Amino acid sequence: MELWFSEDQTPTMRISCKTKNVLYSETSEYQDIAIIDTEQFGRMLTLDSIIQTNIADEFVYHEMISHIPLLTHKNPEKAVVIGGGDGGVIREIVKHQSIKKAVLAEIDGKVVEACKKYLPEISCGLSDPKAEVCIGDGIKYIKEHSNEFDVICVDSTDPIGPAVGLFAKDFYQSIFDSLKDDGIFVAQTESPFFNKELLTRVYSDIKSIFPIVRVYYGVVPTYPGGLWTFTMGSKKYDPLEVDITKIPDLNTRYFTPEIFKSAFNLPKFAQDLLR
Amino acid sequence: MELWFSEDQTPTMRISCKTKNVLYSETSEYQDIAIIDTEQFGRMLTLDSIIQTNIADEFVYHEMISHIPLLTHKNPEKAVVIGGGDGGVIREIVKHQSIKKAVLAEIDGKVVEACKKYLPEISCGLSDPKAEVCIGDGIKYIKEHSNEFDVICVDSTDPIGPAVGLFAKDFYQSIFDSLKDDGIFVAQTESPFFNKELLTRVYSDIKSIFPIVRVYYGVVPTYPGGLWTFTMGSKKYDPLEVDITKIPDLNTRYFTPEIFKSAFNLPKFAQDLLR
Repeated sequence: MELWFSEDQTPTMRISCKTKNVLYSETSEYQDIAIIDTEQFGRMLTLDSIIQTNIADEFVYHEMISHIPLLTHKNPEKAVVIGGGDGGVIREIVKHQSIKKAVLAEIDGKVVEACKKYLPEISCGLSDPKAEVCIGDGIKYIKEHSNEFDVICVDSTDPIGPAVGLFAKDFYQSIFDSLKDDGIFVAQTESPFFNKELLTRVYSDIKSIFPIVRVYYGVVPTYPGGLWTFTMGSKKYDPLEVDITKIPDLNTRYFTPEIFKSAFNLPKFAQDLLR
Repeated sequence: MELWFSEDQTPTMRISCKTKNVLYSETSEYQDIAIIDTEQFGRMLTLDSIIQTNIADEFVYHEMISHIPLLTHKNPEKAVVIGGGDGGVIREIVKHQSIKKAVLAEIDGKVVEACKKYLPEISCGLSDPKAEVCIGDGIKYIKEHSNEFDVICVDSTDPIGPAVGLFAKDFYQSIFDSLKDDGIFVAQTESPFFNKELLTRVYSDIKSIFPIVRVYYGVVPTYPGGLWTFTMGSKKYDPLEVDITKIPDLNTRYFTPEIFKSAFNLPKFAQDLLR
């Protein structure tokens, strides 16, 4: 028997992966969770049949959403990840020596459990002494804290279903309030090829709240279009002013100090979306 | 009826596009040629069921394979495109004021005919007064010329079937001989995620022939992995020494002077393939 997993990346475009085995499949309070073992990408987490992460290319996304804001901040001690139940962002955050506490605020405890069991290479950071896992609503978590965090990474699913609120302007205002005076936040903001309107709207919303807003990208083969954007709101530090010669070795596979600079040089059509 | 075109990007990974219409389908002496009208990417050229180019993202590849070598050369007058029957690379080359002649050496005349008819936005450069279309074997064309060209772009299909010879070391030596003393060539060299061995081998072959070899990338949504590499062999000029402040406006949609620099900053795992 040949087993293929397919994701409709858009209503008119589909990616399919030959699958050896379904390792886990469950419907939680929030979504359908599955971990499948694919030939091309190894073990892969899907939520509502959408690829979230996999063993082969997870490093791109996890390194880019974490190291860019953490290295922009001069001395990040307390970081929060909203979503990101696979633990990959936490794994990268705890590599930074200045970090004292890295909180995961994930709404779906079953995602965390499944990733701990089936994706240990990604979830391993969750057992770091500096990591703290809070199962609950990330929006509520952020609202309950004020002037407290140095860096917040919004590692959400696509802007449908449970993640809609994580792309709302109100949420960005709550994030602003929960950050210290020199705090920074970053959100994954989808593909400029396939989700132009979202990127444009989120950029504009963040710009109306934060004094500094920057968009950068990484290339993730399993995400629609490959070219994936991250939008950063910063109260004080500008990533374009970071001295990349002082970046320590973070044992990365995608990120380099030169990539830090390059990532902000968007293709022209993507720059034009932000005018 | 729902019509979907599928490409097996690897034996275990597939991309599918909902298709409105098959505009053209023919078997030439060399390959199956089709032009289909897809919902997501508009009109698309496929050869042996592999996506070559399409209206929505063609600009990335065509701008990146042409402007980087042309701007590295101080005064390119005569350029050759091997393959590239859709004409997209020629369209970009003739934008450069110094260019006096841009030759397309494409083996399959039927590809050129089909693209002229169904992809005029891409093939339009072929009717430029500076363009010359030579239908015939690109390897033979290169061997018949010596010390003549300033820039050669190898815009080949994947390294299977008719294009195998375009990834051979012998061919790179012929290219070296056909270039003037300060000539530059560039070849598309596939994805570092999915075709590691090819990139490593081609890089090594070109390095054994040219004094300067550099690898850069662009992001093409319809190519496997998105992240697409180009490998440049240069006799004299180093792209890393180009003064990007002097780059003229080339009316591009992906390329910018900053992208010129950024494109050479490969992700770490790709750099490691070239050690």
